[in-house]
Amino acid sequence: MQVTAKDLAILLNGTVEGNPDIMVHKPSKIEEGEIGTISFLGNPKYEHYAYTTQSSVLLVSQAFVPTQSIAATLIRVEDVYASVAILLDRFGAVEKKAAIISSRASIHAGATIAEGVTIGDFVVIEQGACIGHASFIYPQVYIGENVKIGKNVILYPGVRVYKDCEIGDNCILHANTVIGSDGFGFAPLEDGSYKKVVQIGNVIIERNVEIGANTAIDRATMGSTIIREGVKLDNLIQIAHNVEVGRNTVIAAQTGIAGSTKLGEQCMIGGQCGFVGHITVADGTKTQAQSGVASTIKEPNKAWFGYPAIPYNDYLRAFTIFKKLPDLAKRVLAIEHKINSKE
Amino acid sequence: MQVTAKDLAILLNGTVEGNPDIMVHKPSKIEEGEIGTISFLGNPKYEHYAYTTQSSVLLVSQAFVPTQSIAATLIRVEDVYASVAILLDRFGAVEKKAAIISSRASIHAGATIAEGVTIGDFVVIEQGACIGHASFIYPQVYIGENVKIGKNVILYPGVRVYKDCEIGDNCILHANTVIGSDGFGFAPLEDGSYKKVVQIGNVIIERNVEIGANTAIDRATMGSTIIREGVKLDNLIQIAHNVEVGRNTVIAAQTGIAGSTKLGEQCMIGGQCGFVGHITVADGTKTQAQSGVASTIKEPNKAWFGYPAIPYNDYLRAFTIFKKLPDLAKRVLAIEHKINSKE
Amino acid sequence: MQVTAKDLAILLNGTVEGNPDIMVHKPSKIEEGEIGTISFLGNPKYEHYAYTTQSSVLLVSQAFVPTQSIAATLIRVEDVYASVAILLDRFGAVEKKAAIISSRASIHAGATIAEGVTIGDFVVIEQGACIGHASFIYPQVYIGENVKIGKNVILYPGVRVYKDCEIGDNCILHANTVIGSDGFGFAPLEDGSYKKVVQIGNVIIERNVEIGANTAIDRATMGSTIIREGVKLDNLIQIAHNVEVGRNTVIAAQTGIAGSTKLGEQCMIGGQCGFVGHITVADGTKTQAQSGVASTIKEPNKAWFGYPAIPYNDYLRAFTIFKKLPDLAKRVLAIEHKINSKE
Repeated sequence: MQVTAKDLAILLNGTVEGNPDIMVHKPSKIEEGEIGTISFLGNPKYEHYAYTTQSSVLLVSQAFVPTQSIAATLIRVEDVYASVAILLDRFGAVEKKAAIISSRASIHAGATIAEGVTIGDFVVIEQGACIGHASFIYPQVYIGENVKIGKNVILYPGVRVYKDCEIGDNCILHANTVIGSDGFGFAPLEDGSYKKVVQIGNVIIERNVEIGANTAIDRATMGSTIIREGVKLDNLIQIAHNVEVGRNTVIAAQTGIAGSTKLGEQCMIGGQCGFVGHITVADGTKTQAQSGVASTIKEPNKAWFGYPAIPYNDYLRAFTIFKKLPDLAKRVLAIEHKINSKE
Repeated sequence: MQVTAKDLAILLNGTVEGNPDIMVHKPSKIEEGEIGTISFLGNPKYEHYAYTTQSSVLLVSQAFVPTQSIAATLIRVEDVYASVAILLDRFGAVEKKAAIISSRASIHAGATIAEGVTIGDFVVIEQGACIGHASFIYPQVYIGENVKIGKNVILYPGVRVYKDCEIGDNCILHANTVIGSDGFGFAPLEDGSYKKVVQIGNVIIERNVEIGANTAIDRATMGSTIIREGVKLDNLIQIAHNVEVGRNTVIAAQTGIAGSTKLGEQCMIGGQCGFVGHITVADGTKTQAQSGVASTIKEPNKAWFGYPAIPYNDYLRAFTIFKKLPDLAKRVLAIEHKINSKE
Repeated sequence: MQVTAKDLAILLNGTVEGNPDIMVHKPSKIEEGEIGTISFLGNPKYEHYAYTTQSSVLLVSQAFVPTQSIAATLIRVEDVYASVAILLDRFGAVEKKAAIISSRASIHAGATIAEGVTIGDFVVIEQGACIGHASFIYPQVYIGENVKIGKNVILYPGVRVYKDCEIGDNCILHANTVIGSDGFGFAPLEDGSYKKVVQIGNVIIERNVEIGANTAIDRATMGSTIIREGVKLDNLIQIAHNVEVGRNTVIAAQTGIAGSTKLGEQCMIGGQCGFVGHITVADGTKTQAQSGVASTIKEPNKAWFGYPAIPYNDYLRAFTIFKKLPDLAKRVLAIEHKINSKE
């Protein structure tokens, strides 16, 4: 796709400085810019690249004042990052293909497939499953009995959805993610072995949720494990049975949430965090990566850090002293000697 | 499935208070109870729901004394949690389907499939593999050469079992779990690169083991990686080459065990724990979530916490002071000033 | 495969002590040795097994002096571990099978398959993809549009490679690993929801890379996520968008690297480590398992530990005091009392 600087400026509601007819065919990072690409200058620490980049067009903020000459044609916009997102949308747009249902898929006669649905090779769709309008099911996906999939959903290759689970409109699930595996529930027996507690619930994923690759969300023991509207989950995340993740909460990779815990709305959870089971976490909570949240958080909009997690700044201050503990211990010893020698 | 309170009381060896003929069709949580469901009151902090729940039947302990009137029919039992497990078994019981071997599966002529086995679409079973009586192989599973699968095993979609591995009777492996991938073994060469150490061992999973979704268990370099009878592994766990996990040990999600480490029997390992390689961990060891076990644990039945892990209570006590370290440092400084000013 | 001690000695450039014609058919660990196997004595703490092992042949170093009689035939070599790697190569060598392209695979007419390629059942290869000479694609793999796969590559069952990604010669990717899933990029909107930032980049994996099972490597927002030549990644690792991992760096299981971070060459990264985004890590860096690297590391060849990571020895020393913090706090209190009582 070739497009002129002028047309991009219109798209971005920006103004051109330089050649409005210069053509670009894709975005590139400013430090890797080549002729025919459009780059952007967002973070000021990259400014020096603006004077050397080979990119044909450079997106800058309205306030940007160059201190040297710039070869590229500039497009000035109000919000550089928002404009980049629009650019990526434009260049990343996939040509709409005709919806095709592969003859190599295995679709039960008792499943309901709406119009405009694409189903790839070696997909399995079991009895009673419903797939909504324009959803795109990549090859090798498994959709269990009575699963409900909304409209415009994308399931990448190898996604597995166990029976009775529900996935809302516009959701995107990346490759090899598992929805609805059994919760980890076992009752101890007297001989030291464990008896499986059958998990009869399901998973409900509301609309506009995106889930990364190789993530696992367990079905509820009874009732539902619930991922609310607008939640974004990264790769390799563990969501245990009966967890609820609140609206628009964002969770980075490799975090785990133990059974029956309720995360609030608009939380921002770092990577590799852990949450114990049966707690409630207030709306707007932020946790630093690798934190371990071990008890209910009642106060909203606070940042947490550490293991077990404590208020963010408290952890930083304590860790500052932690690093110097050998010195502190030596000083205490010196004081003791001094006092003892005086006695 | 509809069943009366009376029949459930017989199943649970309990007694009915209220209408013995009232019908229920599924269990529900007490706070989500609806007409036609049976709920339970285990944890006393949920007692207030007993007086407002819409559930038709409520399971309570023999000792429970209501402080208000309860609309639901009660079933009194000796052990509420044990009764719930039995209930879930009853309501979660799947109708036995006729065993079918899909014509869309690829089964090598040199594989041995016992009677009563179900094999789903797009399953691959390689030469020399054996599948025991009544095992259920979901679609899209891969079973490598000479793999031995016992009786009554369930492999969910996307499970991959590499060649020569063994899975005992009654095991359940959840979707996309990988058994028998190569151990992480490389020999450094002089130019800074690494040469692969070929992994010729296998994985042996004994009977009655359940393994969650997206877990990975590597084959041994030589000999076997062994998961003993009755072990329960959660989702996204890493078991490295030549590890042995002892009988009835339970490991929560996202824990990792490095090469050649031997975990004892009846251990309870929290989520996101790490164990270094080449250590031995005593029977009955408990580790708090996110702990890092860095050396052999000889004393059985102890609880551990921290990074590196130390005895549980020691960590809690040390962490209590850790949180107040800035204050402690200030006090030491004040003492020093006081002493210096006197000198 | 049966082979004599004499022939193995020639292979290993070693010398035989005992019966040169004794036959072995596989390697075994010294503590599990059986007749017909060859074991090795590397670590001196296993020496006592040398006097009791049932192995027919025992590999020992030239310097080894037995203190008791040994039943096994010895092969003395210069470097025991290097010899074991050669042995495993020899015994683990898989008979070369004829390259077969399964009629049950779905290969787009616009894909290019070199000679000598094996493609298993239920593999999907999309338009524009290229597979190089002698590569082995196990069943149930997905290869997206325009993916480039080099020569002698092995993709185990369930590997998913999204469109436009590149995998170099001699790479090995284990089961259910995902290459090229979307980076975790979302722009916050005013109503608290997030808009997806389209990820138009790809993943480039250079040659001689091995990647474990259930690992996820995200595509770049623009440009490429890059795994350099000779890198070894273990199972369940998370590599975020625009990360670069330097040549011959080795990363243990369950580690995560956040977006745009650049790891140097020849690093050794422990399991369950985390790296924040947008940092640079010097060549030869070593991190202890579970460490959290929170800022750029400039000095090469240093070891790090802790959360956030600090120099390895500093962490150990500080942790030594940490364990005794309750005692230290008591001593400070005692000093305060003493001083106060004197005033």
